[in-house]
Amino acid sequence: MSELRWDPIKLHWVIIATERGRRPRDFHVEPEGDGMTACPFCYGNEDKTPPEIFAIRPSGMPNAANWRVRVIPNKYPALRVEGELNNRGYGLYDVMNGIGAHEVIIETPDHNRSMADLTPHEISDVLTAYRARYQDLRRDFRFRYMVLFKNHGLRAGATLHHSHSQLIAVPLLPPVAATQLKVARNYFSTKERCIFCDLIAFELDCGERVVREFSNFVTLTPYASSSPFELRLYPKRHSHDFALMNDAQLAELAVAMKDMLLRVKNVLRDAPYNFILHTAPPMHRRPGKPTHWNSLEQDYHWHIELVPRLTQVAGFEWGTGFYINPTSPEDAARFLREADV
Amino acid sequence: MSELRWDPIKLHWVIIATERGRRPRDFHVEPEGDGMTACPFCYGNEDKTPPEIFAIRPSGMPNAANWRVRVIPNKYPALRVEGELNNRGYGLYDVMNGIGAHEVIIETPDHNRSMADLTPHEISDVLTAYRARYQDLRRDFRFRYMVLFKNHGLRAGATLHHSHSQLIAVPLLPPVAATQLKVARNYFSTKERCIFCDLIAFELDCGERVVREFSNFVTLTPYASSSPFELRLYPKRHSHDFALMNDAQLAELAVAMKDMLLRVKNVLRDAPYNFILHTAPPMHRRPGKPTHWNSLEQDYHWHIELVPRLTQVAGFEWGTGFYINPTSPEDAARFLREADV
Repeated sequence: MSELRWDPIKLHWVIIATERGRRPRDFHVEPEGDGMTACPFCYGNEDKTPPEIFAIRPSGMPNAANWRVRVIPNKYPALRVEGELNNRGYGLYDVMNGIGAHEVIIETPDHNRSMADLTPHEISDVLTAYRARYQDLRRDFRFRYMVLFKNHGLRAGATLHHSHSQLIAVPLLPPVAATQLKVARNYFSTKERCIFCDLIAFELDCGERVVREFSNFVTLTPYASSSPFELRLYPKRHSHDFALMNDAQLAELAVAMKDMLLRVKNVLRDAPYNFILHTAPPMHRRPGKPTHWNSLEQDYHWHIELVPRLTQVAGFEWGTGFYINPTSPEDAARFLREADV
Repeated sequence: MSELRWDPIKLHWVIIATERGRRPRDFHVEPEGDGMTACPFCYGNEDKTPPEIFAIRPSGMPNAANWRVRVIPNKYPALRVEGELNNRGYGLYDVMNGIGAHEVIIETPDHNRSMADLTPHEISDVLTAYRARYQDLRRDFRFRYMVLFKNHGLRAGATLHHSHSQLIAVPLLPPVAATQLKVARNYFSTKERCIFCDLIAFELDCGERVVREFSNFVTLTPYASSSPFELRLYPKRHSHDFALMNDAQLAELAVAMKDMLLRVKNVLRDAPYNFILHTAPPMHRRPGKPTHWNSLEQDYHWHIELVPRLTQVAGFEWGTGFYINPTSPEDAARFLREADV
């Protein structure tokens, strides 16, 4: 059983994934190779993964080989669905069981097409799978937050080449989300406006960090990007929750996603990247516990954060929490804007 | 001029190091090679670096080739000493000039010896240089914090192979330090004890995360390590400030440092790592501004944090602030304790 342990000095939780139990020799990193022969995410290898949770396929049985998008439990999950939290103290520390969910969204049956290579229609299927899994996992009262992310390339943490994203549900509100939600709530409570809406309006007006504007979406480089060529994709109209998007909106988002991923691929020569979907957490209460977030509808604004992995997080960043970015967001936006897509 | 920019959503400062101005093609990472012929840190190449700020040499002129440890300004500094902060607003954002200091401590004239290979006496010289630079930089009222760190290996962010560490002085208290100092102060204010002293006592009593104990120092793996084989080196007796250590204490610390670095080198096959020296910040006031830290003598406890770079920070960590560690600190301590040093 994994454990969530509390650091009383740094004030954060860490997941000790003891089931992975990696020893010193296990950390030698091999170049990826295409790994095609044994790839558990390819057509025909459906029995090499745990049974699917969700799939988009024209017709037929679960776990058959005619799917377009497939969602499975992670075979080596950081957190497990079974059991109770058992939140307890230990000396100066705190610890709870590693309860959560860890799912993998296989975005395409094709081993060698990255997400940037998919058609908008195919990306729309992927987004539909994201929405379905969000909606389902929110029904579990133990989960306080879900994070959907993608690791593309070895240096971005991808251990399998075949294009996939991951969804992890955690039993605590993570610090990154806690900060964002608090900021958004405080801003709204003094101004009765969404901070993200204000930021998007400022950026559209200013223009120098806008990469591409669509009718309902905008891609831009953040003014205080912590690393080179960082991007944000925002819905222009206020919306706190990705999972409330309808099919037409998902289809539009797919076009904007494809545009963003292609620009990154072309300008940065298929650099490794991570993207993260930030959306409002479930607002249910745990039995007997109040929720901090009675309503986020006015405060929060869902968005996608994309971070190419071009520089190393080194001693300075780790030791201070400050980041050094050697490319200004204005330069990055210009290169990305001028990309051939 | 670099800029410090404030992210109003994530609530952190980012250094946009525009003087480095890296374009898309500049991020292609080459394997290091030994780079010996052109190494600016080697004997005889003293004129390839900016003039030295400090050195330890038996006798002779500054910038001559008979030094044991040499401190120089970074040729490509993230922050510059010259100028004023000019703290100002910009739309929703905040920005100030990138004022600070960025120094490099060349730990040995030998190109191919890493810090783990140095003798305790040589490491003691390096620590003496650290202390001298801390003491000097603290006299500049513009600097609120100094962080000393080492990047060992390409994947830990080292761009030059020749063994060196870095000292950066920043005009703001960084978030990592702010959290630690606040935690330590709050703990002391309720208990009249140092939280680090309590933590060290608990760990020595418990024992399973202790790697090596010396008369006045202890090396251990933190209970909530965010990555595999993380280490902390603490002075056992309460001391808030590394720069107050006397020569005899530095000599003892050098023995403990060498022991820690050799264990990491042997157990993890010379894995890349970062270490960070956490010590109390200067307590001077800026002209006209109060300091938040009138006295840290009772609250804070300096220490060294060492983080081997065995796993990638990926989408989950970036998007949540939670870390997944696949090796329990108890297992890591056992491997490190049993190392042949």
